[in-house]
Amino acid sequence: MKANRDEVLRRLRRIEGQVRGLQRMVEEDRYCIDILTQLAASRAALTQVGMQVLDAHARGCLTAAVQSGQSEPAIDEFLDALERFMK
Amino acid sequence: MKANRDEVLRRLRRIEGQVRGLQRMVEEDRYCIDILTQLAASRAALTQVGMQVLDAHARGCLTAAVQSGQSEPAIDEFLDALERFMK
Amino acid sequence: MKANRDEVLRRLRRIEGQVRGLQRMVEEDRYCIDILTQLAASRAALTQVGMQVLDAHARGCLTAAVQSGQSEPAIDEFLDALERFMK
Amino acid sequence: MKANRDEVLRRLRRIEGQVRGLQRMVEEDRYCIDILTQLAASRAALTQVGMQVLDAHARGCLTAAVQSGQSEPAIDEFLDALERFMK
Repeated sequence: MKANRDEVLRRLRRIEGQVRGLQRMVEEDRYCIDILTQLAASRAALTQVGMQVLDAHARGCLTAAVQSGQSEPAIDEFLDALERFMK
Repeated sequence: MKANRDEVLRRLRRIEGQVRGLQRMVEEDRYCIDILTQLAASRAALTQVGMQVLDAHARGCLTAAVQSGQSEPAIDEFLDALERFMK
Repeated sequence: MKANRDEVLRRLRRIEGQVRGLQRMVEEDRYCIDILTQLAASRAALTQVGMQVLDAHARGCLTAAVQSGQSEPAIDEFLDALERFMK
Repeated sequence: MKANRDEVLRRLRRIEGQVRGLQRMVEEDRYCIDILTQLAASRAALTQVGMQVLDAHARGCLTAAVQSGQSEPAIDEFLDALERFMK
């Protein structure tokens, strides 16, 4: 979990840098298509972080909840989060 | 275009703040589901910015290219950007 | 599970009808935007069916696997399926 | 446009077959993960058809509208269709 947390933080810092880079691109009136390409990259990077958090959650909290007989509310919550994420 | 640029910049700054907030959430070991919900919000916000840039591009560069008889390469480029963005 | 199966089948039959309707629209040279709108509806309907199958799987096979101490391979498989589905 | 239409029809027929195959898989109680994998493939195939229709529309109707000075309503309509499709 610790290794996973450091990896998630590293990725979020990189995404923060990309979003700052995007602001510069807009301020410098860079070509729309280049801005879109960078936006697509940042969005894909956020999706990747989401998959990593889903993974950690499924192996951690969700597994623990099922093992302790609390599977119903844990699975409801997991699927709700998933549905929000897929929109 | 100027109004649109200011709006895009405002949104990107808000997304940058959300991504920094996400880093804090991870550092403070906040609940995965709350992190996922915030990730989904930032991702949706980036999608919205993308739609706004697509809009500006379609009304600006793309329209100008079609009017000056350069529609083919401009549409190729637009659809490629769209495809990358939809992944 | 039986009720869920019937609901999934009902939705898939409706999607099959939509896809046949799309073929007619294309054959009759209907307006692209109307075709796109119907394509978007069919795609959203398939996503909904996917969420329902994910739900049934999480409550059924995945919960059973975790309870019987087989959580690792079951969660790997679940997240792989999810990743393919989100593309 | 004719070649594109035939290709779109061919793809839609294949998707119809996949959706019928999905119904059989559900009736035969096939493993959820296999059903999800097939659902993801059909959904990706519909997305591909959507991109092809967007392409035909951009090169055909949209270009014609811009050339005849009707770019505003045509681009509004195009971006609305795109937004519905990306959901």
